[in-house]
Amino acid sequence: MKMTLQEIAKLVGGRLEGDESLVISRVNNIEGADKDTITFADEAHVEEAAKSQAGAVLLPNTVKTDFPLPAIYVEDTRAAFAVLLTTFLPPIRHAKGVSPDAYIGKDVTIGEGVTILPFAYVDDHAVIGNGITIYPHVYVGQYATVDDNATLYSSVTIREHCHVGKRVIVHSSAVIGADGFGFTTKDGVHTKVPQVGNVILEDDVEIGAHAGIDRATIGSTIIGHGTKIDNLVHIGHNCHIGPNNLIVAQVGISGSTNTGANVTFGGQTGTVGHIDIGGNSVFAARSGIIGNTPEGVFYAGFPARPHQEWLRMQAHLQKISDMAKRLKTMEKKIKELEEN
Amino acid sequence: MKMTLQEIAKLVGGRLEGDESLVISRVNNIEGADKDTITFADEAHVEEAAKSQAGAVLLPNTVKTDFPLPAIYVEDTRAAFAVLLTTFLPPIRHAKGVSPDAYIGKDVTIGEGVTILPFAYVDDHAVIGNGITIYPHVYVGQYATVDDNATLYSSVTIREHCHVGKRVIVHSSAVIGADGFGFTTKDGVHTKVPQVGNVILEDDVEIGAHAGIDRATIGSTIIGHGTKIDNLVHIGHNCHIGPNNLIVAQVGISGSTNTGANVTFGGQTGTVGHIDIGGNSVFAARSGIIGNTPEGVFYAGFPARPHQEWLRMQAHLQKISDMAKRLKTMEKKIKELEEN
Amino acid sequence: MKMTLQEIAKLVGGRLEGDESLVISRVNNIEGADKDTITFADEAHVEEAAKSQAGAVLLPNTVKTDFPLPAIYVEDTRAAFAVLLTTFLPPIRHAKGVSPDAYIGKDVTIGEGVTILPFAYVDDHAVIGNGITIYPHVYVGQYATVDDNATLYSSVTIREHCHVGKRVIVHSSAVIGADGFGFTTKDGVHTKVPQVGNVILEDDVEIGAHAGIDRATIGSTIIGHGTKIDNLVHIGHNCHIGPNNLIVAQVGISGSTNTGANVTFGGQTGTVGHIDIGGNSVFAARSGIIGNTPEGVFYAGFPARPHQEWLRMQAHLQKISDMAKRLKTMEKKIKELEEN
Repeated sequence: MKMTLQEIAKLVGGRLEGDESLVISRVNNIEGADKDTITFADEAHVEEAAKSQAGAVLLPNTVKTDFPLPAIYVEDTRAAFAVLLTTFLPPIRHAKGVSPDAYIGKDVTIGEGVTILPFAYVDDHAVIGNGITIYPHVYVGQYATVDDNATLYSSVTIREHCHVGKRVIVHSSAVIGADGFGFTTKDGVHTKVPQVGNVILEDDVEIGAHAGIDRATIGSTIIGHGTKIDNLVHIGHNCHIGPNNLIVAQVGISGSTNTGANVTFGGQTGTVGHIDIGGNSVFAARSGIIGNTPEGVFYAGFPARPHQEWLRMQAHLQKISDMAKRLKTMEKKIKELEEN
Repeated sequence: MKMTLQEIAKLVGGRLEGDESLVISRVNNIEGADKDTITFADEAHVEEAAKSQAGAVLLPNTVKTDFPLPAIYVEDTRAAFAVLLTTFLPPIRHAKGVSPDAYIGKDVTIGEGVTILPFAYVDDHAVIGNGITIYPHVYVGQYATVDDNATLYSSVTIREHCHVGKRVIVHSSAVIGADGFGFTTKDGVHTKVPQVGNVILEDDVEIGAHAGIDRATIGSTIIGHGTKIDNLVHIGHNCHIGPNNLIVAQVGISGSTNTGANVTFGGQTGTVGHIDIGGNSVFAARSGIIGNTPEGVFYAGFPARPHQEWLRMQAHLQKISDMAKRLKTMEKKIKELEEN
Repeated sequence: MKMTLQEIAKLVGGRLEGDESLVISRVNNIEGADKDTITFADEAHVEEAAKSQAGAVLLPNTVKTDFPLPAIYVEDTRAAFAVLLTTFLPPIRHAKGVSPDAYIGKDVTIGEGVTILPFAYVDDHAVIGNGITIYPHVYVGQYATVDDNATLYSSVTIREHCHVGKRVIVHSSAVIGADGFGFTTKDGVHTKVPQVGNVILEDDVEIGAHAGIDRATIGSTIIGHGTKIDNLVHIGHNCHIGPNNLIVAQVGISGSTNTGANVTFGGQTGTVGHIDIGGNSVFAARSGIIGNTPEGVFYAGFPARPHQEWLRMQAHLQKISDMAKRLKTMEKKIKELEEN
């Protein structure tokens, strides 16, 4: 792939300063850039980019224009760079079709333009849409449905009756629809409550490696459209996660918890079960959410509370040794005052 | 499956109020119930159930009997509902037998009534009991033993020499018997200590998706009978987990830790290694256990301490900004008193 | 395998007290030792070893020499014992060669002395070195390289373009090179940033079960030589982890974080992204690292701080209820003083 700077500027909707006819054949980070490469810099790295070997640089509009290298100025450098990555680095391709070395069960429906690789297993009565890619060692259970243009990477499990929406990406070894953790206990012995519900991944969801979304006891565990889930995340049974959430690595959301739209959970956050988390909220990394939370909050800490409050508490906590000392001093002084 | 209310009441040992001959063909949650459905309500959801479309409702004995719909009163609605789920929704079935597309090594012993699906791999010298189900992409290592009626879901690994007890359920992508994390360090270089022990899962254990139970350095890592382990749990090498423990998602138990019977670990709890945790104890979510703990405790926090103490500490911590202010005020007042 | 005590003493470079000609045929822990067994004891377990049934015991040099059983005195008992384990308990062996039931793509290069088991999948253009072992259900992606004597256990994924160094061990279900968690957000909708970099595991790295090392957005995520990573660890995209780090179970390291050499992260520790962590440091379990840290520190807590400081803070925190009481008492006394 080769493009001139003029073509690139048009593609990303940017303003070009420099040689229109310069030909670019690669995209890379600043460190790895050479004269055939276009790279990008946010405001913190503009100087570094200026000293680089790059042929051209994507810069934010806010940077002044006497930059020493050819530059394309855009509103959002990351978004523009993503467009270039997609353009210059076409994804890995596999042969279309259902491999004879895959295992397809009885009464399975398969759409057009699919790629199903050797050692994939699609069990009885499953429905596979158009344009999907199924990597080796994937298991799609009985009556599961995988909608158009979804991608299931190696060793993914989609258990029976679960649904995978359009354009969903499920990364390696993620498990969709394992049994929820439900038991009744009598005299210390735990008896399994059958988990006969399913999981619905709505359209445009992305699920990280080793994430586990448990099936509902009855009904559905739902991941709302456009929600992106990172690695090693646990979503308990019967959760209803709203649309466009961002759930960062190692978060655990306990069963029957509901979230609104556009909620961000920082890494290693945990929640209790059976709560409602309002939309448009952000929880800092390691928050521990122990009850319902309203719309539009920025919370931190365990128990989670308004971020400002948490910061204030942390600041005082840093000084607790000092507080203890001052307390002791005062006790002494009061004693002296009393004795006088 | 169709049953009359009379038959259902008998099955769950409940008291029926309503039409004995009403035919029920489905079980579902309140929201999804129609006139052919029996649903259930705990005390918090009785009103909601009363307004539902359900044909009949399972209710706790403690609810008064003028309920507007046919109802069956039982002591434990969840347990009764579990019985109905099992009755009305028979599990997914696969063809019995060893698939010719599975790989069976040398000198493997296989019992009767087994289901071993395509792409499963049972390695040399393994022993597989009666009635077991092995899903695709499972690996059972050399000399491993899997006892009667165990279920290994897709992509499970049972490493060599490990033992899986009767009726054990291992969910997708769990790993039983990976090497423990053991190294000797000299001049900054870490040398692996061979991990030549194994893992024993006793009878009636359940292991969640992506849980990892490490093999012992020598001897055995043991999960006691009836213990249930949730998703993404880590059990280090040489742990001896007692019977009937409940270990919730994302818990990490460090090596050589022993637990008594009937211990519950809330989600994201962690422990140091080489400690003894007394039986009949509960650790709240996110506890950090840093030493031995006695029998029968309810602990929380990091470092873990009695729950009441933790609550009191948290309550004071909430007010630390206020304490700081009062401290300052007092210092001023003392200064004034001293100057007078 | 049978060896005399004299031979064993020579092998581990130890000083023998006892019958040179005694034949040993097994190694085991103290509990499982019989008269044909050599076991080992650190200083805490010398008495227990003295009362055991063992034929001989490895002891630290620091123990005085009137031990009742034949003993070999060494500087590092664990290291010596590791040598014996390797000697007496040869690892499980599989037939050499590429199984006809494995799937090998186009243009794949495979070295000599390899073991590639049934149901392993090596995709197009991959390069496999000499002496490697690939277990069932492993996926090696396009253009990936696996260097000499590496071991990939069952259900491991190595995504396209990633590199696995010499003698690297990757445990079951680990995922090397899943997409980093990168999105641009506009009007609440998250658009994927293509993740076109790779992962480099340098020589002598070990990766635990269910660990996920994300591929770089561009460039490489690097795990330095000799670094050992435990189960369920998350390493975000573009991290550069230095050599000889120890990263214990369930740690999460956010994207673009760099670490020096010989850093130890205790279990369940987390870090923010885009920071530099100095070498030769130790972070206690559950540390939460929120900024750059210097060389050679011992930190704990969240936010992470010097361990001594954290201990002091914890000690005061334990007494916060008492502080609150004393505060109240003082306020009362001051009021009395003011009224006089």
